[in-house]
Amino acid sequence: MIKAGIVGGTGYTGVELLRLLAQHPEAEVTAITSRKEAGMKVAEMFPSLRGRVDLAFTTPETAPLNACDVVFFATPNGVAMQQARALLDAGVKVIDLAADFRIQDIAEWSKWYGMEHACPDLVAEAVYGLPEINRDQVKTARLIANPGCYPTAVQLGFLPLIEAGVIDTSWLVADCKSGVSGAGRKAEIGALYAEATDNFRAYAVAGHRHQPEIRQGLARMAGHDVNLTFVPHLTPMIRGIHATLYARLTKDVDLQTLFEARYAGEYFVDVLPAKGHPETRSVRASNLCRIAVHRPQGGDIVVVLSVIDNLVKGASGQAVQNMNLLFGRSENTGLTQVPVSP
Amino acid sequence: MIKAGIVGGTGYTGVELLRLLAQHPEAEVTAITSRKEAGMKVAEMFPSLRGRVDLAFTTPETAPLNACDVVFFATPNGVAMQQARALLDAGVKVIDLAADFRIQDIAEWSKWYGMEHACPDLVAEAVYGLPEINRDQVKTARLIANPGCYPTAVQLGFLPLIEAGVIDTSWLVADCKSGVSGAGRKAEIGALYAEATDNFRAYAVAGHRHQPEIRQGLARMAGHDVNLTFVPHLTPMIRGIHATLYARLTKDVDLQTLFEARYAGEYFVDVLPAKGHPETRSVRASNLCRIAVHRPQGGDIVVVLSVIDNLVKGASGQAVQNMNLLFGRSENTGLTQVPVSP
Amino acid sequence: MIKAGIVGGTGYTGVELLRLLAQHPEAEVTAITSRKEAGMKVAEMFPSLRGRVDLAFTTPETAPLNACDVVFFATPNGVAMQQARALLDAGVKVIDLAADFRIQDIAEWSKWYGMEHACPDLVAEAVYGLPEINRDQVKTARLIANPGCYPTAVQLGFLPLIEAGVIDTSWLVADCKSGVSGAGRKAEIGALYAEATDNFRAYAVAGHRHQPEIRQGLARMAGHDVNLTFVPHLTPMIRGIHATLYARLTKDVDLQTLFEARYAGEYFVDVLPAKGHPETRSVRASNLCRIAVHRPQGGDIVVVLSVIDNLVKGASGQAVQNMNLLFGRSENTGLTQVPVSP
Amino acid sequence: MIKAGIVGGTGYTGVELLRLLAQHPEAEVTAITSRKEAGMKVAEMFPSLRGRVDLAFTTPETAPLNACDVVFFATPNGVAMQQARALLDAGVKVIDLAADFRIQDIAEWSKWYGMEHACPDLVAEAVYGLPEINRDQVKTARLIANPGCYPTAVQLGFLPLIEAGVIDTSWLVADCKSGVSGAGRKAEIGALYAEATDNFRAYAVAGHRHQPEIRQGLARMAGHDVNLTFVPHLTPMIRGIHATLYARLTKDVDLQTLFEARYAGEYFVDVLPAKGHPETRSVRASNLCRIAVHRPQGGDIVVVLSVIDNLVKGASGQAVQNMNLLFGRSENTGLTQVPVSP
Repeated sequence: MIKAGIVGGTGYTGVELLRLLAQHPEAEVTAITSRKEAGMKVAEMFPSLRGRVDLAFTTPETAPLNACDVVFFATPNGVAMQQARALLDAGVKVIDLAADFRIQDIAEWSKWYGMEHACPDLVAEAVYGLPEINRDQVKTARLIANPGCYPTAVQLGFLPLIEAGVIDTSWLVADCKSGVSGAGRKAEIGALYAEATDNFRAYAVAGHRHQPEIRQGLARMAGHDVNLTFVPHLTPMIRGIHATLYARLTKDVDLQTLFEARYAGEYFVDVLPAKGHPETRSVRASNLCRIAVHRPQGGDIVVVLSVIDNLVKGASGQAVQNMNLLFGRSENTGLTQVPVSP
Repeated sequence: MIKAGIVGGTGYTGVELLRLLAQHPEAEVTAITSRKEAGMKVAEMFPSLRGRVDLAFTTPETAPLNACDVVFFATPNGVAMQQARALLDAGVKVIDLAADFRIQDIAEWSKWYGMEHACPDLVAEAVYGLPEINRDQVKTARLIANPGCYPTAVQLGFLPLIEAGVIDTSWLVADCKSGVSGAGRKAEIGALYAEATDNFRAYAVAGHRHQPEIRQGLARMAGHDVNLTFVPHLTPMIRGIHATLYARLTKDVDLQTLFEARYAGEYFVDVLPAKGHPETRSVRASNLCRIAVHRPQGGDIVVVLSVIDNLVKGASGQAVQNMNLLFGRSENTGLTQVPVSP
Repeated sequence: MIKAGIVGGTGYTGVELLRLLAQHPEAEVTAITSRKEAGMKVAEMFPSLRGRVDLAFTTPETAPLNACDVVFFATPNGVAMQQARALLDAGVKVIDLAADFRIQDIAEWSKWYGMEHACPDLVAEAVYGLPEINRDQVKTARLIANPGCYPTAVQLGFLPLIEAGVIDTSWLVADCKSGVSGAGRKAEIGALYAEATDNFRAYAVAGHRHQPEIRQGLARMAGHDVNLTFVPHLTPMIRGIHATLYARLTKDVDLQTLFEARYAGEYFVDVLPAKGHPETRSVRASNLCRIAVHRPQGGDIVVVLSVIDNLVKGASGQAVQNMNLLFGRSENTGLTQVPVSP
Repeated sequence: MIKAGIVGGTGYTGVELLRLLAQHPEAEVTAITSRKEAGMKVAEMFPSLRGRVDLAFTTPETAPLNACDVVFFATPNGVAMQQARALLDAGVKVIDLAADFRIQDIAEWSKWYGMEHACPDLVAEAVYGLPEINRDQVKTARLIANPGCYPTAVQLGFLPLIEAGVIDTSWLVADCKSGVSGAGRKAEIGALYAEATDNFRAYAVAGHRHQPEIRQGLARMAGHDVNLTFVPHLTPMIRGIHATLYARLTKDVDLQTLFEARYAGEYFVDVLPAKGHPETRSVRASNLCRIAVHRPQGGDIVVVLSVIDNLVKGASGQAVQNMNLLFGRSENTGLTQVPVSP
């Protein structure tokens, strides 16, 4: 059994980690921390876990995190970078679901996240945990930077096109739509039911923190910088991200074959048949990414549609996928849930 | 492996059966019929099943139903009663998710369902598949009448009170709220998104088919007829039933202890601590029923809150639970999914 | 022109008052206060009002409230009772949308609202602003206690039955369902989109502040105390209350005629034809209450269905209706919006 | 009083026309037809209109359409072109809310709409009823082609940029999201609540009928053909369209000033302050279009956000706006409703 700890388990990625690990045959959660809720039973906060998770929140100080095999940080940005080194030194693997280790350019990171970085050397060591791109590095890592939700959907959508060198990377558009759980379990007016339902809006058009993360990923694939316009939107649903990607083709290519070939061996990526339109509920509560590729009216614009569940493949599920790789398990252990639809 | 057939798999109870059976370690679906969709891959209609269910719909005539161990009817009312005898004669167990075998009074059934019954003798033989009440009979049955969604939530809520004889059964009120998937996957104006969302309404106040089914169940518990007012409502959510039950106490009793004792051994029934308010999402996509019991202001009115997922404990999950019992499996095999929340 | 002031205009009843008054031909808002948001343009907080409301929030101290003809308090409980006397003394009429003046029994009020009352004498003077019951008293009042949302829907539903003396008031059940805007525009976890959507739950079953308010109203109609069980539920919609009311008939009576006769002259109360089921969206964004009355299976239980928009007839619309009466205007002036459906 | 007839009033644009005209001070609906529902009271189908609309549906044959001043067609495509000539000959103005007269290239129209056109000469005469572009022609027209919902949002968003000649029209992207009422009030599986809620998907990526309509409109503005990629999406809300538009700037220009100047005199178009993000609910149930313009990270890509209510400015409200112009009324008569929010 893999002994797992969770730091900061009171948000949506925390409860989702608990849901997945409670059903994982080869892992068990042995500690979960929340300074604010210390002493409270986890299942009291999240009744969906009654009868399945018997733990109580503890303070970070008293939690036996050092005795874990792996610790997940489901914390706000800036927390994991303070605690990761001690855990790594104790031989514990670390998977950060926040953004502390995602961006290699420390100055860029500081600009977007508004703080100085506590351990640039660990950023350099950290492996970006998108297994469909970095599987081998993940397997041997100590420290995983679990990708953001938008970055997962966008990178998996652009990947075959950029790897094959068939699009003009000087203008890429990612028009993305997210369910409201992406805003986290924080008491904020904008995320209230009566504000967010029956409503649709863009946000952070001037600049969103996931833009540099995506751009870094696409640049790695391309071998050079790319020009990306990224516009996130809030859509009235709980879970799900739908990325609609636009690029100009520079070569004639059979797009359907390109995508199917690239993802042939990937358990968690499903390329729909030609003319498909993946819907977010078709991956709800699962670790899947479903993708379709179009060339409207046979023109030179390629449109990719990519959907994930932001809390699973966009966060906690991908974290468990990384854990499986870190500990030599089959990549889909505990992650074979069939999507819940309707 | 239990070989399972599904007749009429194009509705919500059908796709939910497929979701559950695809994850069941000791059962496999070997045939699924739909006259209208014969030839179509199941996963083409339900993309959530891509990669997990490889079957195509077949016509009832060509489906190898006789070679199944059990056949589920996920059909409109009136279909199972036409086909059950032949299957039973061939040694196949039958679980009807519709209402054909639920009501023992054939005249009453005909009045509510508007047709003559094709096989009253099989109604007499059928076991009402609410395992928390009828577990032993289910185990040895050939033919299971799988309970309706409202009847499951309401009967489990009233059960401890009626068994203990502590309420006045001459007036019982069941005010029930259902998600829209309860209306089925039928193209009807009233179930359109733009009709059903951001809206709440009662329906069938003059009389709903589940009323006689519930009354029959409560009368069995009580040993005499009961007087029940049942009002169903449509609430804008996909899955979930919330039953709010009212009765007048005739004896002073520790309600919390009564409920906890009655359900102490039941895997799928969870009695919340005193003062609890179960929410439907706390059972979403699971086979659980969560219950709380209140006595507002210490008066003589008892209020029971009972929630289930109408597609799972209210239909397909309960059907799998019954299948497990019929074939000597552990009752929760394949039914241990943690609820999906948020 | 009636000059209206609004104290505490940053919540949902505040913005709804602004929407209604912006379209009122004989009133204008001349001051709106919010200590926290002083200086901010109202339309900056509520973009739906851009181009229609040009005011900015001011502090209570600098707002010209004394120069108003009427001041609405759209504040938390406990605010209006501190400021009402000064306004009344200055000749300003006061309409409190909170609960400060609703309950005549001061001790009872203190028990439920957890504070001492600042001006019991004004409670005694205040008129309960449900015009369908108290129209004449409203017309001549200085101080209006605007009813709560649940109390409006429940009282209008029970009124014809109790006035006619045809039900047993020793047990009355009000099973009520409210949209989430009823929780107010406050940053609280429980009202987040990802918590409240696709979910249904009861709350405050042990006791809710609207219970004594409703009981007081029903007792006035009956001329004696009544026994009421009131259970509120949260349903995933923005606006709307659906009250389902249960009582036992003590006399045989033509219920449909009774209701139609009682509300024949009421502009804002619509009795549906027999067998009707009012839906909340049929009153969305309007000041209407629609009611249907049933007698299921011809038994002795009467079921009343009553729907309102909690922000209009349940709050701001009723406040404007009261204002019209206070100033001798036609009762429906500025309140003739057709409901928005779908 | 303008006497208005409605052909085909059983859909969402029909009931919305009725809502708006019932509140219009200078128009009255004198006839409404529906072959299928002839004899039924309109308010029986749409309870929100009870007490406000007393008409019953009649067959087209018996409806006094020739005595109307204007007839609105709220019918499926292909109906208005069969009946328009007779009405025009009788001196009745015609406003078609469907697509029969929107596309000047008859062959193109036939390709997308799958039928031959019944009256190409009337297409040539028809005026495209987007008043912000064609106001003068609308005023003197006999026959109005009321624009589609997506085309309204997209054209108003691109208009200032194309008129000013500051973008490269050889690639334009319109990523659009629509509420589900846009699919109409038709009993189809895909529009069911349980299919459309908590879900997001693109559709018709290969080609949508609004693409040629938009392209025609943009080409007129530009004076030459344009290259447009248009991707529509279904988002789980009732009303609302959010268009996110992308183009490459070819000149340096103050975008904010450009947009504000273009729409300075337009009652129904509201340009948000710089850095704004219009949300669909800020125009809910109103005839407004709110627009914001961005230049992310100061690059050469301009992003325009444009929102409307698809049933009002995208259909019935714009039709009434056109009616006002046709009959010399103030353009906003009967269209001054404040948006309903929340």
